[in-house]
Amino acid sequence: MAKTKKQKSSSFSPVVMTELVLPSHTNALGTIFGGVVMGWIDIAAAIAAQRYSRSQVVTVSIDYLHFINPIKVGYTVKINAQVSSVGRTSMEIEVDVESENGITGQSKPATKAYLTFVAVDENGKPCAVPAYSPKNLHEKKRQKQAEIRRKARLEAFKY
Amino acid sequence: MAKTKKQKSSSFSPVVMTELVLPSHTNALGTIFGGVVMGWIDIAAAIAAQRYSRSQVVTVSIDYLHFINPIKVGYTVKINAQVSSVGRTSMEIEVDVESENGITGQSKPATKAYLTFVAVDENGKPCAVPAYSPKNLHEKKRQKQAEIRRKARLEAFKY
Amino acid sequence: MAKTKKQKSSSFSPVVMTELVLPSHTNALGTIFGGVVMGWIDIAAAIAAQRYSRSQVVTVSIDYLHFINPIKVGYTVKINAQVSSVGRTSMEIEVDVESENGITGQSKPATKAYLTFVAVDENGKPCAVPAYSPKNLHEKKRQKQAEIRRKARLEAFKY
Amino acid sequence: MAKTKKQKSSSFSPVVMTELVLPSHTNALGTIFGGVVMGWIDIAAAIAAQRYSRSQVVTVSIDYLHFINPIKVGYTVKINAQVSSVGRTSMEIEVDVESENGITGQSKPATKAYLTFVAVDENGKPCAVPAYSPKNLHEKKRQKQAEIRRKARLEAFKY
Amino acid sequence: MAKTKKQKSSSFSPVVMTELVLPSHTNALGTIFGGVVMGWIDIAAAIAAQRYSRSQVVTVSIDYLHFINPIKVGYTVKINAQVSSVGRTSMEIEVDVESENGITGQSKPATKAYLTFVAVDENGKPCAVPAYSPKNLHEKKRQKQAEIRRKARLEAFKY
Amino acid sequence: MAKTKKQKSSSFSPVVMTELVLPSHTNALGTIFGGVVMGWIDIAAAIAAQRYSRSQVVTVSIDYLHFINPIKVGYTVKINAQVSSVGRTSMEIEVDVESENGITGQSKPATKAYLTFVAVDENGKPCAVPAYSPKNLHEKKRQKQAEIRRKARLEAFKY
Repeated sequence: MAKTKKQKSSSFSPVVMTELVLPSHTNALGTIFGGVVMGWIDIAAAIAAQRYSRSQVVTVSIDYLHFINPIKVGYTVKINAQVSSVGRTSMEIEVDVESENGITGQSKPATKAYLTFVAVDENGKPCAVPAYSPKNLHEKKRQKQAEIRRKARLEAFKY
Repeated sequence: MAKTKKQKSSSFSPVVMTELVLPSHTNALGTIFGGVVMGWIDIAAAIAAQRYSRSQVVTVSIDYLHFINPIKVGYTVKINAQVSSVGRTSMEIEVDVESENGITGQSKPATKAYLTFVAVDENGKPCAVPAYSPKNLHEKKRQKQAEIRRKARLEAFKY
Repeated sequence: MAKTKKQKSSSFSPVVMTELVLPSHTNALGTIFGGVVMGWIDIAAAIAAQRYSRSQVVTVSIDYLHFINPIKVGYTVKINAQVSSVGRTSMEIEVDVESENGITGQSKPATKAYLTFVAVDENGKPCAVPAYSPKNLHEKKRQKQAEIRRKARLEAFKY
Repeated sequence: MAKTKKQKSSSFSPVVMTELVLPSHTNALGTIFGGVVMGWIDIAAAIAAQRYSRSQVVTVSIDYLHFINPIKVGYTVKINAQVSSVGRTSMEIEVDVESENGITGQSKPATKAYLTFVAVDENGKPCAVPAYSPKNLHEKKRQKQAEIRRKARLEAFKY
Repeated sequence: MAKTKKQKSSSFSPVVMTELVLPSHTNALGTIFGGVVMGWIDIAAAIAAQRYSRSQVVTVSIDYLHFINPIKVGYTVKINAQVSSVGRTSMEIEVDVESENGITGQSKPATKAYLTFVAVDENGKPCAVPAYSPKNLHEKKRQKQAEIRRKARLEAFKY
Repeated sequence: MAKTKKQKSSSFSPVVMTELVLPSHTNALGTIFGGVVMGWIDIAAAIAAQRYSRSQVVTVSIDYLHFINPIKVGYTVKINAQVSSVGRTSMEIEVDVESENGITGQSKPATKAYLTFVAVDENGKPCAVPAYSPKNLHEKKRQKQAEIRRKARLEAFKY
C-alpha cells in the first residue's frame, strides 16, 4: 500500500526544452513529422513528472494533444512542461510547445498537450507522490480545471 | 469551398504495421519508450487517413492514447489503424496496438488511441473527404460512439 | 543434438508491415536509401521466422534482394514476409515489397527478397524448427523452387 | 562589406535544453556517447547564436569542449547556451551541461564548451551581427576572458 | 544509347569504412542488428561504385550477403568495398566486413557480400561506365568468378 | 598506481572512415549538420585511441575542431584519425576530414580536429598506455607541436 509522501510546496519550475527543426524531422510536406513532436513532448513531460515525484515514472496516457500551427524546418521549438494536477500516484503534466522563426524572432503557439504519468517504485509498482497544494489563484484554477477535464474524459471514453 | 467527394463504400481494410522492439527503442526501464510507440501510431494512422481520403493529410490531434500494458524489448508489436468516423474534411482514426512475446506466441493489448487527421489539398488547405456510410451494425455503433466522444471531448477541453 | 519439433500445419499468416517514406529515409536522389529498405525487410523476415519457429532467430544470409522500382518520398511501403521453405534448423523467408502512391492509390512491386534465418536456443546454438508440410499445390511448388534456388546458390558461390 | 547592425542591449536569456539519457544514446560502457552530447551542444549553441544575430548561422569551431563527469543512462541533462563574446560577424557561445540524477535530485557539472559561430546572409556570406555591450561587471569579465582565450588559441594552433 | 567511356586502369583503391558497435545498433540478443550492417555495406558499396563510375549510382541488387560471425556491442567493424567486375552500365561490388575486439586486437571475418549497382545520368537513366581491364592474375580470376556467379544467379532465380 | 606498458613501435596505421552525406544528416541550409560530423570524428578518434592502448577509452576533451569548408548532401566524407602524442594515461588524436564530390572526384579539406582520450580499466579508472616513440622526423615534429598545443591550451583556458 502506497503511503502519501510529505506535502510539497507548489513552486517547482517547469521543464524547458529547446530544439531546432532539422530536415530529418520532417514529413513529405516539409513541416515537422507529428511523431517527432510527440517524442519531445513525452520526454519533457516525463522529466517534469520525475522531478516532481523523485521516482521513476511511466507514461499512462496522452489525454489531449492538439497541433495548433504547423512547424517548419529551420524553426526553433520551445517546449514547456509542468505538473498541473496530482493524484495519489499519478500526475497530470501540461505541455506547451511554441515555434519560433529564428530570423524574425516571431513565435507562435504550435502544440498543446496534457499527459498523465504514474510514479513507480523499483519493482515497477505505482507509488505515492507528494501532495500538491496550489499556492495562488492561478494554480487553484488550473487544478480545478484538471479535475473537470478528468471527469469529462472518463465520461467521453466510456464509449 | 470544399465540396464533398462521392460517397465511399465503408469497407476498406485497416492498415497493419508490425515492428520488433529493439534496444534502441527502450527507455531506462527496459520497456519501450513512449515516444517510439507514438511515432508508429502516428504513421499507421496517417496512412489509414491517406488511403481513405486519397489526399495529403495532417495530424490535428491525439484525442486519446492510453498505454494499457508495457512493451518489452524483443517483443513484436502489431499496430492496426482504421477510419472510425468521418467529418467533412476530417477523419477519426482508431488505433489498436498489441504486443506479442515471439517465443510463447502470447499477445496482449498494449495501447489504444484515437487520432484526428484533416485532408489537405496542394495548397495545404483542408479539402473534403468521401462521406462515410457504415454498412453494418458494428460500424454504425462505432460511428455513434465516435460522435459521443467528440462531444464529450469538446466539453472536456473548454477548461 | 537438436531434435525436430512436432510438425506444423502449413497455414500461418504472413507478416505485414506498412511504412511511410519520410525525408529522413532518402538518399541524395530523393528516393529511398537502400539501407532503409534492407532494414525493414530484415525486421519483417525475422518476425516471420520467429513466429514460425517460436524461438530466437538470427539472420544467416540474404540470398537475393532485387530493387525492381525506386520508392519515392511520401509513398507508402507495404512489406509481406512469409516462410517459403524450411530446413532442420533454418528457414527461408520470402519478402515482397510494394510501394503505393497514397494519392492515386496505384501500387507497384518495389523489392523482392529471400533471406535465410536460423533458430537459436538460449545458448545461441542452432535448434530444430517445426517441419513444414505444404498443404496445397502453390505451397508445394514454392517449396520445390526454394530447393532449386538453394542448390544453384551453393553452386554459384563456390566461386 | 558588412555593416554593423545597431547595438544590442546585452541582456538576452540563455537557451535552455533539457534531455533524458535513453539507452540509444549510450556507448558500450553504459554512459552517454560523446557524439550525442556534442550534437546537443551544437544545437543549443546554434540557437543561441541565431537568437542573438537574427540570421542563419554556421558552426565555425569548437574551441574547447571538456567532459568533466560521465553522464549515465536514465539521467536528465540540462544544457545552457549563451553568447559570451561577439566579433564583427562571429559569436562565441559558452555552453554548460549539467547532469541530474532524477531520483535523488543531485546534479553535477558534466561538460563545458565554447563554440564559435558566424552569421551568414541568404547567399551564405558572413554578415555583421549586433555589437555587444556588457552591462555589468560579470559580463565585462567574461568578455575580457573570451578575448584572452581567443589569443591563446590562435597562438596554440599555429603549431 | 549509352557509349562506353574511355577504359580505366584497373588500379583503384577500395573504400574503407570503420565503425564502432554502439548499443543503439544491437538486437535483443546483444549482437548487431542485421539491418545496421546491411546499411553500412550499402553505403560503402555505393561509394565504391560512384568512385569508379564518377556518376550517381543506384543499388540494383544484393546478390549475396552472408553473416559469417556475429558482431558484438563494443567491437570495431571494418568494411572494405571494391569493384570486382563491370558491365556496360553496371558494377559488381565485393564487400568484406571484419569485426575486431578492440581490447585483444583479434579480428574475424564477419560478413561477406556482393552487390550490383547501376550508374545513372542526371535524368536517372542508366549510363555507361568505364571498361574494366584486370591488370594482374588475381584481378583476372576475380573477374572470371564474377561472371560464373552472374550466370548461376540468373539460373537460380528463374525459379 | 598505473604502470607504463611496454614501449610500442610508433608505426600504427590511422583509422579510416568513409561516409556518404544523406539528407538525414543535413541542417536547414542543405549542408551537413555540425553534430553529425562531430559524432563521426568522436567515433573515429575513439577507435584510434582504443587500437593504440588496447583498452576501453573515454573522450576527455575536444581541444580544437575547425570547420574549414561546408560539406554538401551527396558528397563523400573521408575521415582519418591517428594518435599524435601520448601521455601516461592519455592520448591526443589528430583527425582530418575531407569531403569529396563523388562525380568530379575533387576533394577538399573539410574539418580538422584534435581530441584527447584517456584509457580506462575494467573499473573505469585511468590506466597506463604504451609509451610513444616517434620513429621519424615527421612524427617527432608532430609530437613536439602537440606539446606546445597542450601548454598553450592550459594557458588559454585558465581564463
